[in-house]
Amino acid sequence: MKKNIWNKLSPSIILIGPQMGENIGASARAMLNFGIEKMSIVNPRDGWPNNRAKSMSAGAGRVLDAAQVFSNTSDALSGLNFVFATTARTRDLSKEIMTPERAMLYARTLIQEGKKVGFMFGPENSGLSNEDIAQANVLVSVPVNPEFSSLNLSQCVLLLAYEWQRQITEVPNEIMEFAGTDFASLKEVQKLVDRSEEALMARNFFWPIDKSESMLLSFRNMFSRLKLTKMDVQIFHGIIKSMEKPRKD
Amino acid sequence: MKKNIWNKLSPSIILIGPQMGENIGASARAMLNFGIEKMSIVNPRDGWPNNRAKSMSAGAGRVLDAAQVFSNTSDALSGLNFVFATTARTRDLSKEIMTPERAMLYARTLIQEGKKVGFMFGPENSGLSNEDIAQANVLVSVPVNPEFSSLNLSQCVLLLAYEWQRQITEVPNEIMEFAGTDFASLKEVQKLVDRSEEALMARNFFWPIDKSESMLLSFRNMFSRLKLTKMDVQIFHGIIKSMEKPRKD
Repeated sequence: MKKNIWNKLSPSIILIGPQMGENIGASARAMLNFGIEKMSIVNPRDGWPNNRAKSMSAGAGRVLDAAQVFSNTSDALSGLNFVFATTARTRDLSKEIMTPERAMLYARTLIQEGKKVGFMFGPENSGLSNEDIAQANVLVSVPVNPEFSSLNLSQCVLLLAYEWQRQITEVPNEIMEFAGTDFASLKEVQKLVDRSEEALMARNFFWPIDKSESMLLSFRNMFSRLKLTKMDVQIFHGIIKSMEKPRKD
Repeated sequence: MKKNIWNKLSPSIILIGPQMGENIGASARAMLNFGIEKMSIVNPRDGWPNNRAKSMSAGAGRVLDAAQVFSNTSDALSGLNFVFATTARTRDLSKEIMTPERAMLYARTLIQEGKKVGFMFGPENSGLSNEDIAQANVLVSVPVNPEFSSLNLSQCVLLLAYEWQRQITEVPNEIMEFAGTDFASLKEVQKLVDRSEEALMARNFFWPIDKSESMLLSFRNMFSRLKLTKMDVQIFHGIIKSMEKPRKD
Protein backbone atom coordinates (compact mmCIF):
# COMPACT_ATOMS: atom_id res chain seq x y z
CA MET A 1 0.00 0.00 0.00
CA LYS A 2 2.86 2.37 0.80
CA LYS A 3 4.27 1.51 -2.59
CA ASN A 4 1.06 2.58 -4.27
CA ILE A 5 1.04 5.99 -2.66
CA TRP A 6 4.74 6.48 -3.34
CA ASN A 7 4.10 5.94 -7.01
CA LYS A 8 1.59 8.74 -7.26
CA LEU A 9 3.00 11.64 -9.19
CA SER A 10 3.66 14.26 -6.53
CA PRO A 11 6.60 15.33 -4.38
CA SER A 12 7.06 13.91 -0.92
CA ILE A 13 7.14 15.98 2.25
CA ILE A 14 9.90 15.14 4.72
CA LEU A 15 9.55 16.47 8.27
CA ILE A 16 12.87 16.45 10.11
CA GLY A 17 12.65 16.25 13.91
CA PRO A 18 9.14 17.68 14.26
CA GLN A 19 8.38 18.51 17.89
CA MET A 20 4.61 18.80 18.21
CA GLY A 21 2.27 16.07 17.06
CA GLU A 22 -0.31 18.76 16.30
CA ASN A 23 1.98 20.19 13.64
CA ILE A 24 2.50 16.79 12.04
CA GLY A 25 -1.28 16.32 11.89
CA ALA A 26 -1.88 19.82 10.54
CA SER A 27 0.83 19.24 7.93
CA ALA A 28 -0.90 16.02 6.83
CA ARG A 29 -4.14 17.99 6.37
CA ALA A 30 -2.38 20.75 4.45
CA MET A 31 -0.79 18.15 2.16
CA LEU A 32 -4.04 16.33 1.46
CA ASN A 33 -5.83 19.64 0.81
CA PHE A 34 -3.67 19.92 -2.27
CA GLY A 35 -3.31 16.29 -3.24
CA ILE A 36 0.08 15.40 -1.73
CA GLU A 37 0.06 12.12 0.19
CA LYS A 38 3.67 11.03 0.70
CA MET A 39 5.03 11.98 4.12
CA SER A 40 8.33 10.92 5.66
CA ILE A 41 9.23 11.73 9.25
CA VAL A 42 12.72 11.72 10.73
CA ASN A 43 13.02 11.39 14.51
CA PRO A 44 9.70 12.82 15.67
CA ARG A 45 10.40 14.17 19.18
CA ASP A 46 7.46 12.40 20.81
CA GLY A 47 7.81 9.06 19.01
CA TRP A 48 5.50 7.41 16.51
CA PRO A 49 2.57 6.88 16.12
CA ASN A 50 1.43 10.07 17.84
CA ASN A 51 -2.13 10.56 19.11
CA ARG A 52 -2.04 14.36 18.88
CA ALA A 53 -0.98 14.09 15.25
CA LYS A 54 -3.83 11.67 14.67
CA SER A 55 -6.53 13.83 16.24
CA MET A 56 -5.29 17.00 14.49
CA SER A 57 -5.19 15.29 11.11
CA ALA A 58 -8.96 14.79 11.07
CA GLY A 59 -9.79 13.30 7.68
CA ALA A 60 -6.16 13.13 6.62
CA GLY A 61 -5.34 10.13 8.81
CA ARG A 62 -4.41 8.07 5.78
CA VAL A 63 -1.42 10.33 5.14
CA LEU A 64 -0.17 9.57 8.67
CA ASP A 65 -0.94 5.87 8.34
CA ALA A 66 1.19 5.65 5.23
CA ALA A 67 3.98 7.90 6.57
CA GLN A 68 7.46 6.38 6.62
CA VAL A 69 9.54 6.99 9.73
CA PHE A 70 13.36 7.15 9.68
CA SER A 71 16.04 7.59 12.31
CA ASN A 72 18.24 9.86 10.23
CA THR A 73 17.97 12.29 7.34
CA SER A 74 20.23 10.37 4.97
CA ASP A 75 17.98 7.31 5.07
CA ALA A 76 14.89 9.44 4.48
CA LEU A 77 16.45 11.01 1.40
CA SER A 78 18.18 7.99 -0.07
CA GLY A 79 15.35 7.04 -2.44
CA LEU A 80 15.05 10.53 -3.90
CA ASN A 81 16.66 12.10 -6.95
CA PHE A 82 16.30 15.72 -5.95
CA VAL A 83 15.71 17.40 -2.61
CA PHE A 84 14.58 20.93 -1.77
CA ALA A 85 15.28 22.27 1.74
CA THR A 86 12.86 24.89 3.07
CA THR A 87 14.51 27.62 5.05
CA ALA A 88 13.52 30.96 6.55
CA ARG A 89 16.97 32.29 7.37
CA THR A 90 19.86 33.14 5.11
CA ARG A 91 22.43 30.40 5.40
CA ASP A 92 26.18 30.23 5.53
CA LEU A 93 26.21 27.40 3.02
CA SER A 94 26.29 28.58 -0.56
CA LYS A 95 23.34 27.05 -2.34
CA GLU A 96 20.82 28.24 -4.87
CA ILE A 97 17.62 29.68 -3.33
CA MET A 98 14.30 29.35 -5.14
CA THR A 99 10.87 30.83 -4.48
CA PRO A 100 8.13 28.22 -3.87
CA GLU A 101 6.84 29.12 -7.32
CA ARG A 102 10.05 28.34 -9.11
CA ALA A 103 10.78 25.32 -6.93
CA MET A 104 7.42 23.71 -7.69
CA LEU A 105 7.72 24.47 -11.38
CA TYR A 106 11.08 22.75 -11.31
CA ALA A 107 9.68 19.88 -9.23
CA ARG A 108 6.94 19.40 -11.81
CA THR A 109 9.50 19.17 -14.60
CA LEU A 110 11.55 16.64 -12.67
CA ILE A 111 8.53 14.55 -11.72
CA GLN A 112 7.29 14.51 -15.30
CA GLU A 113 10.66 12.99 -16.20
CA GLY A 114 10.10 10.25 -13.65
CA LYS A 115 12.35 11.68 -10.93
CA LYS A 116 11.53 11.35 -7.22
CA VAL A 117 11.44 14.73 -5.56
CA GLY A 118 11.20 15.70 -1.88
CA PHE A 119 10.77 18.84 0.22
CA MET A 120 12.46 18.89 3.64
CA PHE A 121 11.12 20.90 6.59
CA GLY A 122 13.06 21.42 9.82
CA PRO A 123 11.98 21.38 13.48
CA GLU A 124 9.61 24.13 14.65
CA ASN A 125 12.10 25.94 16.88
CA SER A 126 15.33 25.86 14.91
CA GLY A 127 14.65 24.95 11.31
CA LEU A 128 16.91 22.61 9.35
CA SER A 129 20.46 22.07 10.59
CA ASN A 130 23.40 22.82 8.33
CA GLU A 131 24.10 19.09 8.22
CA ASP A 132 20.63 18.45 6.78
CA ILE A 133 20.84 21.37 4.37
CA ALA A 134 24.16 20.10 3.08
CA GLN A 135 22.31 17.03 1.80
CA ALA A 136 19.78 19.02 -0.22
CA ASN A 137 20.23 20.17 -3.79
CA VAL A 138 18.66 23.62 -3.51
CA LEU A 139 16.94 25.82 -0.93
CA VAL A 140 13.36 27.08 -0.99
CA SER A 141 12.38 30.22 0.85
CA VAL A 142 8.87 31.66 1.13
CA PRO A 143 9.09 35.41 0.37
CA VAL A 144 7.56 36.65 3.62
CA ASN A 145 7.52 40.21 4.91
CA PRO A 146 11.08 40.67 6.26
CA GLU A 147 9.66 42.68 9.17
CA PHE A 148 7.26 39.90 10.12
CA SER A 149 8.13 36.40 9.02
CA SER A 150 6.50 34.10 11.58
CA LEU A 151 5.30 31.13 9.53
CA ASN A 152 4.75 27.94 11.47
CA LEU A 153 5.58 24.47 10.18
CA SER A 154 2.14 23.49 8.90
CA GLN A 155 1.58 26.91 7.29
CA CYS A 156 4.83 26.49 5.41
CA VAL A 157 3.75 23.00 4.28
CA LEU A 158 0.37 24.47 3.26
CA LEU A 159 1.94 27.15 1.07
CA LEU A 160 4.27 24.70 -0.65
CA ALA A 161 1.44 22.21 -1.20
CA TYR A 162 -0.73 24.99 -2.62
CA GLU A 163 2.06 25.97 -5.01
CA TRP A 164 2.36 22.36 -6.15
CA GLN A 165 -1.33 22.21 -6.95
CA ARG A 166 -1.21 25.61 -8.62
CA GLN A 167 1.64 24.53 -10.87
CA ILE A 168 -0.06 21.36 -12.03
CA THR A 169 -3.44 23.02 -12.60
CA GLU A 170 -3.92 24.50 -16.02
CA VAL A 171 -5.55 27.89 -15.71
CA PRO A 172 -7.10 29.34 -18.85
CA ASN A 173 -5.28 32.47 -19.86
CA GLU A 174 -8.27 34.76 -19.75
CA ILE A 175 -8.29 38.30 -20.97
CA MET A 176 -8.43 40.91 -18.23
CA GLU A 177 -11.65 42.63 -19.12
CA PHE A 178 -12.68 45.97 -17.71
CA ALA A 179 -9.19 47.16 -16.83
CA GLY A 180 -9.01 50.91 -17.37
CA THR A 181 -12.69 51.61 -16.77
CA ASP A 182 -13.90 53.83 -13.94
CA PHE A 183 -15.89 51.53 -11.67
CA ALA A 184 -18.65 52.81 -9.46
CA SER A 185 -18.06 52.36 -5.74
CA LEU A 186 -20.20 49.76 -4.00
CA LYS A 187 -21.94 52.62 -2.22
CA GLU A 188 -23.02 54.09 -5.54
CA VAL A 189 -24.26 50.71 -6.72
CA GLN A 190 -26.12 50.15 -3.47
CA LYS A 191 -27.85 53.51 -3.79
CA LEU A 192 -28.89 52.64 -7.31
CA VAL A 193 -30.18 49.23 -6.23
CA ASP A 194 -32.10 50.72 -3.32
CA ARG A 195 -33.71 53.31 -5.55
CA SER A 196 -34.56 50.76 -8.22
CA GLU A 197 -36.03 48.37 -5.70
CA GLU A 198 -38.17 51.07 -4.19
CA ALA A 199 -39.47 52.11 -7.59
CA LEU A 200 -40.16 48.52 -8.61
CA MET A 201 -41.76 47.53 -5.33
CA ALA A 202 -44.16 50.43 -5.68
CA ARG A 203 -45.20 48.76 -8.93
CA ASN A 204 -45.50 45.21 -7.52
CA PHE A 205 -42.53 44.00 -9.54
CA PHE A 206 -41.45 41.52 -6.84
CA TRP A 207 -44.47 39.29 -6.94
CA PRO A 208 -45.86 36.78 -5.85
CA ILE A 209 -45.08 37.67 -2.27
CA ASP A 210 -43.65 34.25 -1.29
CA LYS A 211 -41.02 34.55 -4.04
CA SER A 212 -40.24 38.20 -3.43
CA GLU A 213 -37.31 37.65 -1.09
CA SER A 214 -35.38 35.42 -3.47
CA MET A 215 -36.27 37.72 -6.39
CA LEU A 216 -34.83 40.63 -4.44
CA LEU A 217 -31.66 38.69 -3.72
CA SER A 218 -31.22 37.78 -7.39
CA PHE A 219 -31.86 41.38 -8.31
CA ARG A 220 -29.14 42.64 -5.94
CA ASN A 221 -26.77 39.92 -7.06
CA MET A 222 -27.26 40.85 -10.68
CA PHE A 223 -26.32 44.46 -10.05
CA SER A 224 -23.14 43.64 -8.17
CA ARG A 225 -22.16 41.13 -10.89
CA LEU A 226 -22.49 43.73 -13.64
CA LYS A 227 -19.33 45.61 -12.59
CA LEU A 228 -21.00 48.93 -13.32
CA THR A 229 -18.96 51.98 -14.19
CA LYS A 230 -19.82 55.39 -12.76
CA MET A 231 -21.32 56.23 -16.14
CA ASP A 232 -23.48 53.09 -16.11
CA VAL A 233 -24.88 54.06 -12.71
CA GLN A 234 -25.82 57.50 -14.03
CA ILE A 235 -27.51 55.91 -17.02
CA PHE A 236 -29.56 53.59 -14.81
CA HIS A 237 -30.60 56.49 -12.60
CA GLY A 238 -31.68 58.29 -15.73
CA ILE A 239 -33.71 55.28 -16.86
CA ILE A 240 -35.53 55.00 -13.54
CA LYS A 241 -36.22 58.71 -13.39
CA SER A 242 -37.55 58.60 -16.92
CA MET A 243 -39.72 55.53 -16.27
CA GLU A 244 -41.38 57.21 -13.31
CA LYS A 245 -42.88 59.83 -15.60
CA PRO A 246 -46.27 59.13 -17.25
CA ARG A 247 -46.25 58.10 -20.92
CA LYS A 248 -46.86 60.94 -23.32
CA ASP A 249 -48.79 59.07 -25.99
CA MET B 1 -3.35 56.60 11.57
CA LYS B 2 -6.07 54.37 10.16
CA LYS B 3 -6.12 56.60 7.13
CA ASN B 4 -2.42 56.07 6.61
CA ILE B 5 -2.71 52.32 6.58
CA TRP B 6 -5.77 52.44 4.38
CA ASN B 7 -3.82 54.35 1.79
CA LYS B 8 -1.13 51.70 1.48
CA LEU B 9 -1.37 49.90 -1.81
CA SER B 10 -2.81 46.52 -0.92
CA PRO B 11 -6.26 44.93 -0.76
CA SER B 12 -8.20 44.92 2.49
CA ILE B 13 -9.36 41.76 4.25
CA ILE B 14 -12.95 41.79 5.52
CA LEU B 15 -13.93 39.15 8.07
CA ILE B 16 -17.70 38.73 8.24
CA GLY B 17 -19.05 37.40 11.55
CA PRO B 18 -15.86 35.64 12.70
CA GLN B 19 -16.56 33.37 15.67
CA MET B 20 -13.23 32.65 17.32
CA GLY B 21 -10.86 35.39 18.41
CA GLU B 22 -7.98 33.01 17.74
CA ASN B 23 -8.87 32.96 14.05
CA ILE B 24 -9.00 36.74 13.86
CA GLY B 25 -5.54 36.90 15.46
CA ALA B 26 -4.14 34.18 13.19
CA SER B 27 -5.61 35.98 10.17
CA ALA B 28 -3.86 39.20 11.23
CA ARG B 29 -0.56 37.31 11.38
CA ALA B 30 -1.14 35.70 7.99
CA MET B 31 -1.91 39.12 6.49
CA LEU B 32 1.18 40.77 7.94
CA ASN B 33 3.37 37.86 6.81
CA PHE B 34 2.65 39.01 3.28
CA GLY B 35 2.40 42.74 3.79
CA ILE B 36 -1.38 43.26 4.02
CA GLU B 37 -2.42 45.49 6.92
CA LYS B 38 -6.00 46.60 6.34
CA MET B 39 -8.54 44.48 8.22
CA SER B 40 -12.25 45.15 8.58
CA ILE B 41 -14.44 43.06 10.86
CA VAL B 42 -18.23 42.80 10.69
CA ASN B 43 -20.03 41.65 13.83
CA PRO B 44 -17.35 39.57 15.56
CA ARG B 45 -19.27 37.02 17.64
CA ASP B 46 -17.42 37.73 20.89
CA GLY B 47 -17.31 41.52 20.59
CA TRP B 48 -14.34 43.82 20.09
CA PRO B 49 -11.56 44.19 21.15
CA ASN B 50 -10.92 40.50 21.75
CA ASN B 51 -8.14 39.23 24.03
CA ARG B 52 -7.82 35.87 22.31
CA ALA B 53 -7.33 37.63 18.99
CA LYS B 54 -4.71 39.83 20.60
CA SER B 55 -2.70 37.00 22.13
CA MET B 56 -2.85 34.90 18.94
CA SER B 57 -1.74 37.79 16.76
CA ALA B 58 1.69 37.94 18.45
CA GLY B 59 3.67 40.58 16.60
CA ALA B 60 0.77 41.48 14.32
CA GLY B 61 -1.12 43.41 17.00
CA ARG B 62 -0.94 46.58 14.94
CA VAL B 63 -3.21 45.03 12.32
CA LEU B 64 -5.82 44.43 15.02
CA ASP B 65 -5.31 47.88 16.55
CA ALA B 66 -6.03 49.50 13.20
CA ALA B 67 -8.92 47.16 12.29
CA GLN B 68 -12.24 48.83 11.53
CA VAL B 69 -15.33 47.22 13.02
CA PHE B 70 -18.76 47.44 11.40
CA SER B 71 -22.22 46.26 12.32
CA ASN B 72 -23.20 45.20 8.80
CA THR B 73 -21.59 44.10 5.55
CA SER B 74 -22.86 47.00 3.45
CA ASP B 75 -21.11 49.55 5.67
CA ALA B 76 -17.88 47.56 5.58
CA LEU B 77 -17.92 47.48 1.77
CA SER B 78 -19.16 50.97 1.05
CA GLY B 79 -15.73 52.54 0.62
CA LEU B 80 -14.56 49.90 -1.85
CA ASN B 81 -14.67 49.82 -5.64
CA PHE B 82 -14.42 46.07 -6.09
CA VAL B 83 -15.10 43.16 -3.77
CA PHE B 84 -14.10 39.50 -4.02
CA ALA B 85 -16.05 36.95 -1.94
CA THR B 86 -14.17 33.82 -0.90
CA THR B 87 -16.23 30.67 -1.02
CA ALA B 88 -15.66 26.94 -0.70
CA ARG B 89 -19.01 25.72 -1.95
CA THR B 90 -20.62 26.10 -5.31
CA ARG B 91 -23.30 28.72 -5.02
CA ASP B 92 -26.80 29.14 -6.36
CA LEU B 93 -26.09 32.73 -7.31
CA SER B 94 -24.61 33.07 -10.76
CA LYS B 95 -21.34 34.92 -10.44
CA GLU B 96 -17.92 34.60 -11.99
CA ILE B 97 -15.51 32.40 -10.01
CA MET B 98 -11.78 33.10 -10.04
CA THR B 99 -8.79 31.20 -8.70
CA PRO B 100 -6.75 33.10 -6.07
CA GLU B 101 -4.09 33.51 -8.74
CA ARG B 102 -6.39 35.23 -11.20
CA ALA B 103 -8.19 37.19 -8.49
CA MET B 104 -4.97 38.66 -7.13
CA LEU B 105 -3.68 39.45 -10.60
CA TYR B 106 -6.94 41.30 -11.21
CA ALA B 107 -6.73 42.98 -7.78
CA ARG B 108 -3.24 44.19 -8.62
CA THR B 109 -4.45 45.72 -11.88
CA LEU B 110 -7.32 47.48 -10.10
CA ILE B 111 -5.13 48.74 -7.26
CA GLN B 112 -2.55 50.06 -9.70
CA GLU B 113 -5.38 52.12 -11.20
CA GLY B 114 -6.13 53.58 -7.77
CA LYS B 115 -9.16 51.38 -7.00
CA LYS B 116 -9.95 50.14 -3.50
CA VAL B 117 -10.25 46.37 -3.42
CA GLY B 118 -11.42 44.03 -0.68
CA PHE B 119 -11.61 40.28 -0.02
CA MET B 120 -14.53 39.03 2.11
CA PHE B 121 -14.33 35.90 4.28
CA GLY B 122 -17.36 34.31 5.95
CA PRO B 123 -17.84 32.83 9.44
CA GLU B 124 -15.90 29.63 10.26
CA ASN B 125 -18.92 27.33 10.39
CA SER B 126 -21.08 28.45 7.51
CA GLY B 127 -19.11 30.67 5.16
CA LEU B 128 -20.58 33.76 3.56
CA SER B 129 -24.36 34.10 3.35
CA ASN B 130 -26.05 34.57 0.01
CA GLU B 131 -26.96 38.09 1.11
CA ASP B 132 -23.28 38.94 1.58
CA ILE B 133 -22.25 37.23 -1.64
CA ALA B 134 -24.86 39.19 -3.55
CA GLN B 135 -22.92 42.35 -2.66
CA ALA B 136 -19.62 41.10 -4.07
CA ASN B 137 -18.49 41.51 -7.66
CA VAL B 138 -16.91 38.09 -8.15
CA LEU B 139 -16.19 34.91 -6.21
CA VAL B 140 -12.79 33.46 -5.33
CA SER B 141 -12.36 29.77 -4.67
CA VAL B 142 -9.14 28.02 -3.61
CA PRO B 143 -8.73 24.93 -5.80
CA VAL B 144 -8.51 22.37 -2.99
CA ASN B 145 -8.66 18.60 -3.33
CA PRO B 146 -12.40 17.94 -3.84
CA GLU B 147 -12.09 14.83 -1.66
CA PHE B 148 -10.54 16.78 1.20
CA SER B 149 -11.21 20.50 1.34
CA SER B 150 -10.92 21.43 5.03
CA LEU B 151 -9.29 24.86 4.99
CA ASN B 152 -9.86 26.97 8.06
CA LEU B 153 -10.41 30.72 8.04
CA SER B 154 -6.84 31.83 8.76
CA GLN B 155 -5.39 29.29 6.30
CA CYS B 156 -7.63 30.71 3.61
CA VAL B 157 -6.49 34.24 4.49
CA LEU B 158 -2.88 33.00 4.42
CA LEU B 159 -3.19 31.57 0.91
CA LEU B 160 -4.83 34.69 -0.48
CA ALA B 161 -2.24 36.94 1.20
CA TYR B 162 0.54 34.77 -0.20
CA GLU B 163 -0.95 35.07 -3.69
CA TRP B 164 -1.09 38.83 -3.31
CA GLN B 165 2.59 38.98 -2.44
CA ARG B 166 3.46 36.54 -5.22
CA GLN B 167 1.65 38.67 -7.80
CA ILE B 168 3.40 41.89 -6.82
CA THR B 169 6.85 40.28 -6.61
CA GLU B 170 8.81 40.23 -9.81
CA VAL B 171 10.47 36.86 -10.26
CA PRO B 172 13.26 36.64 -12.81
CA ASN B 173 12.30 34.33 -15.63
CA GLU B 174 15.15 31.91 -15.23
CA ILE B 175 15.98 29.14 -17.62
CA MET B 176 15.24 25.66 -16.35
CA GLU B 177 18.70 24.18 -16.42
CA PHE B 178 19.39 20.50 -16.15
CA ALA B 179 15.99 19.35 -17.29
CA GLY B 180 16.40 16.17 -19.30
CA THR B 181 19.57 14.98 -17.60
CA ASP B 182 19.72 11.72 -15.69
CA PHE B 183 20.38 12.76 -12.10
CA ALA B 184 22.10 10.49 -9.64
CA SER B 185 20.01 9.48 -6.66
CA LEU B 186 20.99 10.99 -3.33
CA LYS B 187 22.11 7.53 -2.27
CA GLU B 188 24.59 7.38 -5.12
CA VAL B 189 25.90 10.84 -4.26
CA GLN B 190 26.18 9.92 -0.59
CA LYS B 191 28.19 6.81 -1.45
CA LEU B 192 30.51 8.88 -3.57
CA VAL B 193 30.91 11.48 -0.84
CA ASP B 194 31.59 8.80 1.80
CA ARG B 195 34.19 7.17 -0.37
CA SER B 196 35.86 10.46 -1.22
CA GLU B 197 35.93 11.56 2.39
CA GLU B 198 37.47 8.30 3.48
CA ALA B 199 40.14 8.55 0.81
CA LEU B 200 40.88 12.18 1.64
CA MET B 201 40.86 11.70 5.39
CA ALA B 202 43.44 8.97 5.00
CA ARG B 203 45.58 11.65 3.39
CA ASN B 204 44.97 14.36 6.03
CA PHE B 205 42.99 16.50 3.59
CA PHE B 206 40.66 17.78 6.32
CA TRP B 207 43.24 19.61 8.39
CA PRO B 208 43.81 21.38 10.80
CA ILE B 209 41.72 19.25 13.09
CA ASP B 210 39.71 22.17 14.62
CA LYS B 211 38.51 23.14 11.14
CA SER B 212 37.90 19.63 9.91
CA GLU B 213 34.21 19.50 10.84
CA SER B 214 33.25 22.64 8.93
CA MET B 215 35.47 21.58 6.02
CA LEU B 216 33.62 18.26 5.89
CA LEU B 217 30.28 20.06 5.92
CA SER B 218 31.32 22.35 3.07
CA PHE B 219 32.59 19.33 1.19
CA ARG B 220 29.26 17.50 1.55
CA ASN B 221 27.35 20.64 0.70
CA MET B 222 29.36 21.15 -2.45
CA PHE B 223 28.57 17.67 -3.73
CA SER B 224 24.84 17.99 -3.17
CA ARG B 225 24.82 21.42 -4.82
CA LEU B 226 26.49 20.10 -7.96
CA LYS B 227 23.35 18.24 -9.14
CA LEU B 228 25.46 15.35 -10.34
CA THR B 229 24.27 13.06 -13.08
CA LYS B 230 24.77 9.31 -12.88
CA MET B 231 27.60 9.70 -15.35
CA ASP B 232 29.27 12.39 -13.19
CA VAL B 233 29.23 10.05 -10.23
CA GLN B 234 30.93 7.33 -12.25
CA ILE B 235 33.58 9.80 -13.39
CA PHE B 236 34.30 10.87 -9.80
CA HIS B 237 34.57 7.26 -8.68
CA GLY B 238 37.03 6.73 -11.53
CA ILE B 239 39.06 9.74 -10.41
CA ILE B 240 39.30 8.52 -6.81
CA LYS B 241 40.18 5.02 -7.85
CA SER B 242 42.87 6.37 -10.13
CA MET B 243 44.26 8.72 -7.48
CA GLU B 244 44.63 5.90 -4.99
CA LYS B 245 47.22 4.24 -7.22
CA PRO B 246 50.85 5.21 -6.82
CA ARG B 247 52.36 7.56 -9.39
CA LYS B 248 54.21 5.82 -12.17
CA ASP B 249 56.94 8.35 -12.76
